[in-house]
Amino acid sequence: MSVQLGGIKENWSAQEVGDGNINYVWIIKGPSGAFVLKQAADFIRIVPTWRLTKKRVWWERRSFLEYFKYCPSRVPKQIFFNEQYSLNVMEYCHPHIILRKGLISGNIYPKLAEHVSEYLAQTLFHTSDLYLKSEEKRKLMMDFVDNSLIHLTESVIFHEPYITHQNNHWTNEQILHDEISSIQSDAFLKFEVSQLKEKFMNFTQALIHGDLHTGSIMVTNEDTKIIDTEFAFFGPMGFDIGAYLANLWLSYFSHQGLIKHGKEENTQYTKWLEDQAIQTWDSFVLKFVKLWEEEKKGEMYSFDTGLAQTKFIENLWQDTVGYAGCKMIRRIIGIAHVEDLESIKDTQIRADCEVKILKFAKHLILNRRTIPHMNYISSLLSTSM
Amino acid sequence: MSVQLGGIKENWSAQEVGDGNINYVWIIKGPSGAFVLKQAADFIRIVPTWRLTKKRVWWERRSFLEYFKYCPSRVPKQIFFNEQYSLNVMEYCHPHIILRKGLISGNIYPKLAEHVSEYLAQTLFHTSDLYLKSEEKRKLMMDFVDNSLIHLTESVIFHEPYITHQNNHWTNEQILHDEISSIQSDAFLKFEVSQLKEKFMNFTQALIHGDLHTGSIMVTNEDTKIIDTEFAFFGPMGFDIGAYLANLWLSYFSHQGLIKHGKEENTQYTKWLEDQAIQTWDSFVLKFVKLWEEEKKGEMYSFDTGLAQTKFIENLWQDTVGYAGCKMIRRIIGIAHVEDLESIKDTQIRADCEVKILKFAKHLILNRRTIPHMNYISSLLSTSM
Repeated sequence: MSVQLGGIKENWSAQEVGDGNINYVWIIKGPSGAFVLKQAADFIRIVPTWRLTKKRVWWERRSFLEYFKYCPSRVPKQIFFNEQYSLNVMEYCHPHIILRKGLISGNIYPKLAEHVSEYLAQTLFHTSDLYLKSEEKRKLMMDFVDNSLIHLTESVIFHEPYITHQNNHWTNEQILHDEISSIQSDAFLKFEVSQLKEKFMNFTQALIHGDLHTGSIMVTNEDTKIIDTEFAFFGPMGFDIGAYLANLWLSYFSHQGLIKHGKEENTQYTKWLEDQAIQTWDSFVLKFVKLWEEEKKGEMYSFDTGLAQTKFIENLWQDTVGYAGCKMIRRIIGIAHVEDLESIKDTQIRADCEVKILKFAKHLILNRRTIPHMNYISSLLSTSM
Repeated sequence: MSVQLGGIKENWSAQEVGDGNINYVWIIKGPSGAFVLKQAADFIRIVPTWRLTKKRVWWERRSFLEYFKYCPSRVPKQIFFNEQYSLNVMEYCHPHIILRKGLISGNIYPKLAEHVSEYLAQTLFHTSDLYLKSEEKRKLMMDFVDNSLIHLTESVIFHEPYITHQNNHWTNEQILHDEISSIQSDAFLKFEVSQLKEKFMNFTQALIHGDLHTGSIMVTNEDTKIIDTEFAFFGPMGFDIGAYLANLWLSYFSHQGLIKHGKEENTQYTKWLEDQAIQTWDSFVLKFVKLWEEEKKGEMYSFDTGLAQTKFIENLWQDTVGYAGCKMIRRIIGIAHVEDLESIKDTQIRADCEVKILKFAKHLILNRRTIPHMNYISSLLSTSM
C-alpha cells in the first residue's frame, strides 16, 4: 500500500468522508496514489447506542471478492483486509460521486442502465443454483448465513414502518397523517408486506447485495461502481432490483414535485429517470436470459429452458415490484430517509411528493401479481403526479 | 453405557440389523439393557462405489438433539457420539418395528396419526421463523447449510426419474413403458417438478427431516419414534409431510392391488390407510395453528394472524401435495424402490399397481394448486383403482 501511495509517510493524508448511516470511511492519499479505508465500529454511526457487529466489513469483503469474479469492472478492487481492526482497504474510485447526489443534481449518466443491469445479471445469475453446483452454493452460503445485519433490514423495512414505532418519523404530520394511518391500518397491505418479508427471510435464491440503493453506487459519466455490500446474504434477487428501481422512482417523484411547484424547469430529467427504470429492467432480463442460455451449469431447472425462463422472470418481476414498494414506504415513514426528498427544503412540497410516493408504493405492493410490465408502471407514475 | 448394558463385556452381544440403503446399524445388548449403534462408512451401503460423507451421523445427531427439545417422546434419546469413528449411539426402541413392515403386514396403529402429526407440527413450527428469532434460526442453519446429502435427494427425486438414467429401473417394461415414457416426455410435468425442486433447494422454511418415509418411523401399538434424520436441512415443510403421505399412499395402492387380484381379503385396511392420510394432515393443521396461536415468538408474520395462517396452510398444502407426487414417482422409476411394492411377487399385479400410482402422482403434481382438500384426494384414490 505504501508503494501505491508513494513518497514518505509525512506526505500522506487521511480524510474522513463517510456520509452513510453506518460506517466510517477515510480517503488515504499520497503523492502517487490513494485508496479508501473503511472501518466498522461496533455501533451504528448515526445511532451510537445501537450495537452492530464489526464482522460486517468481513461480509463486505467476502461478497466483493465473489462479485469481482463475475463483474470485475463494477466493484472496487479489494486491496487489504484487517480483521482485528475491522478495516477494509479498497480502490479509491475517483472522480466518482455517489449516484444519489448525481441524481439530485439532475446529472445524466449515459451508461448507468447498462452498467447496473450488468452488475445485477452477473452477480445474481452466478451466485444462484442456475450457475453454481448445489454443493458450491451451499459452501458459499456458509459464509453468509450468519450475517446478522439482515435482522436490521427485517426490522426497518418490513416491520417498523407498519406499526407505531419510536424509529418512525415523517416530514409533515398534517399532510401525511391520513396516508400513513391508512397504511398502518391496512391489514391486506400488511399481509402482502409479510409475504414479501417471508420470502426475504426464507428464499436463498442468490447472493444479493442487500442494500442496493442509489447511495451504494458511485458514478462518473463513463463508469459505475457498486459499493457497501456488507448486507450481502442469500436472499431473493428481486430485493436488489427492487431496491434500485425504488430509489430511481424516489428521485423521479422528488424532481416531479419540484417541477410541479415551479421550483425546477428541466422536465426532460424525470423522463430520463423513468426510462432508466425501464432500461435497467429490460437490459437485466436480456443479460440474465443470455447468461442462462450460455453459462448454465447449475442443477436447478435442468429439464427445460423456455417455460422455466418465462416463469422465473415473471416471478422475479413480481418480487421486484413488491420489494420496490417496500423500499419506498420505509424511506418516507421509517428510520432512514433519503436526501432526494430531505433536500427539498419546503416541507409542504416535500410532504406532497411523499404522499404520492406512498400511494404509488402501496399500489405496487398490492398489485404486483397483475402489473404486467414497465410501461404500465410508467403510466402509474404519470397518473401519480 | 457399560452400566446401562450391565454385566461384563463377555456378556454383551452386537448384531447388525440395518436394512436401510445407506448405513450400518447394530443392536448392542447386555444383561440389563441395550442400545443402538449407527455407524457411517464413507460410501453408501447398497452401492459401495458411491461415496457419501461420514459427517451424516453428525447431522443426524445434531437434528435429533434439536427435535428432542420440542418433541422428546417422538425421537430416540441420544446417548453417545464419536466423531472419529462416525458413530452415533442412541436409545434402543423395543419392541418397535419399522412402520413400513407393519403396513405391509396390515397392522393397525391406533396412535400413528396423532404421533406423526405431533412430530411434524412440533419440529416444523419450532424450527421456522414463526418460532425462532431471526438470529437464532440463522445460527441453527449454520449447522446444516453444508449438508451435502441434500444433493443426493436433488438427484434421485427431482432429476433422475425424469430422464434416461442408469440408476432407473422398473418392474415390467411391457406394462410400465407407456406411462414412464409419457412422464419422461411431459414438458409440463417436468416443469412443475423443476419448480418443486427450486423450492426444495432455495426455501429454508424449517429444519426438515428430509427423508420421512415409512422406513424412517418405528412403531408399536402404543408408541411411534422417528429415526434416520441425517438428511435434515432447512427446506420446505411440505417435503416432510408429502414424503409421509406418499408412503401411506404407496401402501394403499399395494394393498388395493392385492385385493383387486384376489390376493388379499381385508378391504378395511385400505380404508384405514386412506383415513390415516386425512387424519395426519388434519391433526397436523390443528396442532400447527395451535402452536402458532400459543407460542409464536418469531418475527415472520408479525402483523396479523388469521389471513396469514390461512395462506400459509394453503401454500403448505400445495407443497405437500406436489412433493407427495414426486416421492411416489421416484419409488417406481428411480433408484430406490419400496418393499410395499417389491414384496408383491407377481410382477403383473405389481406393475399394474405401479401404473396407477404413476397416474395418481402425476395428477397430484400437475393439479396441486387446485386440489382443494384431502377428501378430494380420497376420491382420486377410489377413481385410480
